[in-house]
Amino acid sequence: MVVNYDQVMKLALERGFYFPSCEIYPDAPAGFWEYGPTGVNMKNKFVELWRRELVRRDGMMEIDGSQIMSRSVFVASGHIGNFTDPIVKCTKCGSTFRADRYILEKTNENVPERMADNEINGLIEKHNLRCPNCKGEFGSVSRFNMMFRVGIGPAAEEAYLRPETCQAIFVDFARIFKTMRGRLPLGVAQVGKSFRNEIAPRQSLLRLREFYQAEIEVFCNPNRLDEMSKFDEVKNTILRISSQDGGSITETTAHEAISKGLIPNKLVAYYLALLTLFYAKTGVDVKRSRFRKLSDEEKAFYASVAFDFEVETSIGWLELVACNYRSDYDLKGHGITSKQNLEVFDPTDQKKVLPHVFELSMGIDRSIYTILEHCYYEDEKHDDRVVLRLKPYLAPILVGILPLMTKDGLGQKARKIHSDLKFEYDTFYDESGSIGRRYRRLEEVGAPFAVTIDPETMQDDTVTVRHRDTMLQERVKATELRQYIQDALAAARN
Amino acid sequence: MVVNYDQVMKLALERGFYFPSCEIYPDAPAGFWEYGPTGVNMKNKFVELWRRELVRRDGMMEIDGSQIMSRSVFVASGHIGNFTDPIVKCTKCGSTFRADRYILEKTNENVPERMADNEINGLIEKHNLRCPNCKGEFGSVSRFNMMFRVGIGPAAEEAYLRPETCQAIFVDFARIFKTMRGRLPLGVAQVGKSFRNEIAPRQSLLRLREFYQAEIEVFCNPNRLDEMSKFDEVKNTILRISSQDGGSITETTAHEAISKGLIPNKLVAYYLALLTLFYAKTGVDVKRSRFRKLSDEEKAFYASVAFDFEVETSIGWLELVACNYRSDYDLKGHGITSKQNLEVFDPTDQKKVLPHVFELSMGIDRSIYTILEHCYYEDEKHDDRVVLRLKPYLAPILVGILPLMTKDGLGQKARKIHSDLKFEYDTFYDESGSIGRRYRRLEEVGAPFAVTIDPETMQDDTVTVRHRDTMLQERVKATELRQYIQDALAAARN
Repeated sequence: MVVNYDQVMKLALERGFYFPSCEIYPDAPAGFWEYGPTGVNMKNKFVELWRRELVRRDGMMEIDGSQIMSRSVFVASGHIGNFTDPIVKCTKCGSTFRADRYILEKTNENVPERMADNEINGLIEKHNLRCPNCKGEFGSVSRFNMMFRVGIGPAAEEAYLRPETCQAIFVDFARIFKTMRGRLPLGVAQVGKSFRNEIAPRQSLLRLREFYQAEIEVFCNPNRLDEMSKFDEVKNTILRISSQDGGSITETTAHEAISKGLIPNKLVAYYLALLTLFYAKTGVDVKRSRFRKLSDEEKAFYASVAFDFEVETSIGWLELVACNYRSDYDLKGHGITSKQNLEVFDPTDQKKVLPHVFELSMGIDRSIYTILEHCYYEDEKHDDRVVLRLKPYLAPILVGILPLMTKDGLGQKARKIHSDLKFEYDTFYDESGSIGRRYRRLEEVGAPFAVTIDPETMQDDTVTVRHRDTMLQERVKATELRQYIQDALAAARN
Repeated sequence: MVVNYDQVMKLALERGFYFPSCEIYPDAPAGFWEYGPTGVNMKNKFVELWRRELVRRDGMMEIDGSQIMSRSVFVASGHIGNFTDPIVKCTKCGSTFRADRYILEKTNENVPERMADNEINGLIEKHNLRCPNCKGEFGSVSRFNMMFRVGIGPAAEEAYLRPETCQAIFVDFARIFKTMRGRLPLGVAQVGKSFRNEIAPRQSLLRLREFYQAEIEVFCNPNRLDEMSKFDEVKNTILRISSQDGGSITETTAHEAISKGLIPNKLVAYYLALLTLFYAKTGVDVKRSRFRKLSDEEKAFYASVAFDFEVETSIGWLELVACNYRSDYDLKGHGITSKQNLEVFDPTDQKKVLPHVFELSMGIDRSIYTILEHCYYEDEKHDDRVVLRLKPYLAPILVGILPLMTKDGLGQKARKIHSDLKFEYDTFYDESGSIGRRYRRLEEVGAPFAVTIDPETMQDDTVTVRHRDTMLQERVKATELRQYIQDALAAARN
């Protein structure tokens, strides 16, 4: 079965997963989306899974820093100078376009991240590209900084909304390492909003101006990248590594990937393995994923080695996580600009070292989209019912509570059962419409269990638990329902 | 025992609860703070408790909207026109001050929220106030809008960082009500960052420019504010209601508060009761709290009736939650500005109604500070050890795992126990320093349980569980530790 973007979008809009921000207003800027009630629950559970499988498992420390940060931070990070998109403006009507995108769209010619402006001008000239609105000529390529500037206080001091969450991790690193008595390698993690003033946001959650990241920065001693005793826990994890053009994919264990020279060291291999294990638990089909090593031209300005974790969807391969070996780029930059010594003591070497950083920069919104698409299922055997086959621990609603009818005390009994469960679990009480329609609505938001209260319940205090995917029903004692759900959830997790 | 602000601050800085943002840079603007590893865990657990005791309990819907919103939103909300602070600028040196604060500080005269500028000018003249920096004369009072403006795209379209999370709830209300098949009264909730360009931020988490809110907007039929069947669940909850000056506090049940005319209706009383029950569970001493009804001059511009939930701390009464009856102020404003009909159908009346709104606007950061202060304890009987007596379900670390020594296999055994627990619970493995010091460190971050692995463990597979507050120890089978912790956590919750 092939699922397409529009089907997922329709479901998302109709069932409260996500929708455009400020949509009642015509001046609502593009690139801003909201999570509705089902989307919020799913996103929060995704973040909890990330905490469990990465942060807690690995003993990382999580911080939550400010989104507005001082100018100095972005001078040091290079974003003031380098975090720009090439733009061209029509000399006639003044419309502005992102030059690299427009060239790709019109000519199929790829403009790499680091191409110089005069080369881009050359491409525009060579292909005689003109304004799509008025056919006017373009001016020369200029640079548009993608950070949002804000002014602090009455004097409007210059500051910026962070374009990536990780800068707080770098700036705070020395304090955290010291107060929390850190030891290298140390993972520091953060979940939160980042902001990029995209010229052409598009495709709902896939290119946003305001978006959620879950970032992990692993601070390490660059001389000890192969000294990872915990690597053994994951050495047999299968990784899918592709060539730079994404063409051929090699399936190999983390261990073999190192000996084959596909991955430079144990530290990187360890985290790519954790990441693969994590995504397998999200319900993303990891057989449709790849780690693609980026070419020098494609890499971000701070990365010395970079793998993109990409997943195949109906609209192509989506980058969900950027895995960058940032070396000492960031700590060195912040050390110089702030005139602070950001070295830390490594007891193994008995000396101070400026840590290197390996990063897992995850896009939460894109991950949510991908999970929805991979879990979307039209059940041809059963009236083409739409089933979101989400993992139970990611389902926005875990249990639907449905009285077959409300009379004869069934409604009251159902409300009682609902009350007993609602503190612990995301539950949904629904008494309106036919039982079939109520099942359909629950299937569409991925609720794994539907509990039905029927006349038999009033006699023997049992209810039916209906399973979303198999549609099988079993009778369970009402008093044992909580344990039943708890066990099912635990079984799904392991 | 009296705890003061500085003690809490010292603990927060030393133990990773919170610290200033961008602190390595001299241009770091004031009013921005970060949560460190312990603070993040505690804050996340606070939010989870809020979800449990308010959102899920009441069947509310939670959304997560954009922080950057279009200009129209804030035209409609009144923030473009009204969300301003009165400022005065020195005509000689150009320093700028918040007029109301400066007058209060110098003269002890209160400047209410809604005082007109010419009256404020009058006060400055009357008291002959001058610039504290250069003794220069002040110019006339002007207005400084507290919203941060951002420019979207190359044309820098006008948009703002939201000054309160609730605007997304109002703007999205019609869609949510329809797609989620809502019925009045319906609570819609949101947790997230809000931004206010304060002229004089101060006192770490207490007046921030970027801060966390947990807001609940209850949409209701204004003709049915006393038709709340679920009010009976909380009617005997004790509420503490004070006069406008905060002087005398009346302790009364929610039910009596209505009959005495202290609270206008069951809907408001129901939510004030839920809020009281929630804060009791956070560990805040609710005997030191009050609902203070605001005078007309104090209320925010959108509120028709307002209670502040305030808690007594070492630095005075802190407002933790603003409880505002916003009537139809917001939906009416957005309806007019967007030219959309935001009425919804109420089946009880069999007609459309423009809902009124009662709001619980919670400051998360201030709540975290207050919990820390109320749970801070210096144990004079035991070497003045500092104990953070946090509720187990809010503790940043739930279990410390401490091998008495690492040799003879104790370290390995302790790591094994740690590995078994770390996916589910916030655990901390610590093998360095004397066992007494390790206990102290755990007590200071509020860890309720310390598990010690000692030579006996190697013989009979038992460990000691040490309780933070009583310092009592008991021996528990290592294989039963997980269940022991789970039971203790469940017992604490109920």
